[in-house]
Amino acid sequence: MIIPFNKPYMTGNETRYIEEAVAVGKISGDGMFSKKSSEFLEQKYGFKKCLLTTSCTDALEMAAILIDIKEGDEVIMPSYTFVSTANAFVLHGAKLVFCDSRIDHPGMDESKIEALITKKTKAIVPVHYAGVACDMDMIMSIANKYGLYVIEDAAHAIDSFYNDKEGTQKPLGSIGHLAAFSFHETKNIISGEGGMLVINDEKFIKRAEIIREKGTNRSAFFRGEIDKYGWVDIGSSFLPSDIIAAFLLAQLENIDNIQSKRKEIWNQYYDGLISLEKDGLLKLPSIPDFATNNAHMFYLCCDSLEQRNMLIQTLKEKGIFSVFHYLSLHSSEFYKDKHGDRQLEYADFYTDRILRLPLYYELTSDQIHLIISTIRSIFYK
Amino acid sequence: MIIPFNKPYMTGNETRYIEEAVAVGKISGDGMFSKKSSEFLEQKYGFKKCLLTTSCTDALEMAAILIDIKEGDEVIMPSYTFVSTANAFVLHGAKLVFCDSRIDHPGMDESKIEALITKKTKAIVPVHYAGVACDMDMIMSIANKYGLYVIEDAAHAIDSFYNDKEGTQKPLGSIGHLAAFSFHETKNIISGEGGMLVINDEKFIKRAEIIREKGTNRSAFFRGEIDKYGWVDIGSSFLPSDIIAAFLLAQLENIDNIQSKRKEIWNQYYDGLISLEKDGLLKLPSIPDFATNNAHMFYLCCDSLEQRNMLIQTLKEKGIFSVFHYLSLHSSEFYKDKHGDRQLEYADFYTDRILRLPLYYELTSDQIHLIISTIRSIFYK
Repeated sequence: MIIPFNKPYMTGNETRYIEEAVAVGKISGDGMFSKKSSEFLEQKYGFKKCLLTTSCTDALEMAAILIDIKEGDEVIMPSYTFVSTANAFVLHGAKLVFCDSRIDHPGMDESKIEALITKKTKAIVPVHYAGVACDMDMIMSIANKYGLYVIEDAAHAIDSFYNDKEGTQKPLGSIGHLAAFSFHETKNIISGEGGMLVINDEKFIKRAEIIREKGTNRSAFFRGEIDKYGWVDIGSSFLPSDIIAAFLLAQLENIDNIQSKRKEIWNQYYDGLISLEKDGLLKLPSIPDFATNNAHMFYLCCDSLEQRNMLIQTLKEKGIFSVFHYLSLHSSEFYKDKHGDRQLEYADFYTDRILRLPLYYELTSDQIHLIISTIRSIFYK
Repeated sequence: MIIPFNKPYMTGNETRYIEEAVAVGKISGDGMFSKKSSEFLEQKYGFKKCLLTTSCTDALEMAAILIDIKEGDEVIMPSYTFVSTANAFVLHGAKLVFCDSRIDHPGMDESKIEALITKKTKAIVPVHYAGVACDMDMIMSIANKYGLYVIEDAAHAIDSFYNDKEGTQKPLGSIGHLAAFSFHETKNIISGEGGMLVINDEKFIKRAEIIREKGTNRSAFFRGEIDKYGWVDIGSSFLPSDIIAAFLLAQLENIDNIQSKRKEIWNQYYDGLISLEKDGLLKLPSIPDFATNNAHMFYLCCDSLEQRNMLIQTLKEKGIFSVFHYLSLHSSEFYKDKHGDRQLEYADFYTDRILRLPLYYELTSDQIHLIISTIRSIFYK
């Protein structure tokens, strides 16, 4: 038996919706299914405006353009993140100021942000690693104090929440000025490649529509607000095909079912492996009080790089595919010289230690049991 | 009866291939169908390397990054083109130097290029308007003389050719250093939104793979050339979902059938409307000797803006949807001040006069007949 790390899953209506899109006569961007998907997400999570994009990367690039990133602007973000968080801003000339991870979690250490702020700082980009919230009260309060933008990298964070200090539960992606989501095939809700920009600060809506439409005021034209449209700003083609949106809508309509299944899998892993943590052999994911778990990812935090390599190899020999995750960006070939010599010990710590286990809708209870027992048998011979 | 301007069409295998992609377990970028589509195009047209992208815009942006466009570099392109031709370079700091259209065709006037070259010129971007080749011998010879890059904007130009001075027929997109194609729903071969970068100069291949993979050397890693991959360059997420590539492959496998049908429609229009040209009422598309016709577009070149408006309106009243096309970019709100006061009379001429008629696979002979007779009845009362 082979258990892949990931396996995309169809809920049933995906190809029927694609056929409908063709029949309706529009499969380019912002067709019927793009509208339905955006409205679904706006209604379910109270996002002010959702704009589908071809990837989370593209949503982050739109954000960089919207906050007008220019040569020399500084952007604070975790080092332990995907390259896209960084590229989106680097492409527009930003200098990245990397923040270390928390001791208890790969997310960025909110207490270390303020010390990184300079007169050139323009934005903070918290990444909700594994769908687990950063401390958004703390981040928003720092941002307000210094007049900075907050762009939530919510690539992992669909259907996850932050419990604020007043006890209100807020959907991730609804708190910063802007937020970016991913529908990549490894995410909870998928469309192969795909993403979404969420706009919470209304002042960005009009320009976002223009930038997304290759710098033209075509959206306003179709709403009848202007009588002809033309080139008015920079922009690109950030719109996904309505084929992608049709696939996505089928997924979204099943989100409650998908989430409940993923949480079941996550809990089965947790219960089956918690003794390893209790016995001091490795750590399981820790979720701060202010965060919820959307079961995006189940990871082990290994004791060492050697332990992780051994686990990957041993699992692979049994047909089970587990994978490591990010490499600290401050240590990357591309950025190490630009970063300087500031140490980020926890970012490097997680670089060497995180191991992700298979987690997908069609993973069976027997398969999870096999993965758990294989891992346990490595430690308890 | 309503005849839309465009109607997407499925050849039959589109959703079956999408289901296959899901079953194979990979619907993110560069899956099985991305490889098959790229190989199909490389083999059919002799392109050195094809990389699918989420849009032609994205392919042009990759080209801008690959030729290392920097603040102040000048890029020569037609004014009568889609905003994406321009945006891709503007986003990276280029100054656009717009070239006028030909007298006989909306494509750029090759004889006017050389006078626009300065020490800052870095590239020429010919646009093969309506799939009709620019004079590539002339353009390549100017580029060679001044050491410039040539990026073919082949958005309209799939399956179209250039007859060079030695009598060789070369596929459009195979001549410049780089070329960009579109698979937008209005094109001959469609995937809703979608595009492709063609690399003819091998020196760009390695970096193109990196830029497309968010600036990582992941492609080399998967080929086993390096033992781990990381962030090595700028980049973005230019890869389309394999869902899109699956849809595209089904289309590509029917390209000969699609092309033959489109040419039939084009010829029916031409034969039915040629008397209007002979009678001096308006003009039909003209195709230079060095170019072929891929039946991407059938357009009328009206006598005046008023005549065009009248035709659009009258056709609309009969349920027939015709559309105008580009607005000169040198006159756009975004660029008019940057362009200066250099007149581009033919770009403005086509802005006011081009009228595109419905042209899609499922357009029936009866419908074409109705469109022709409606237009004829306007002129020959």
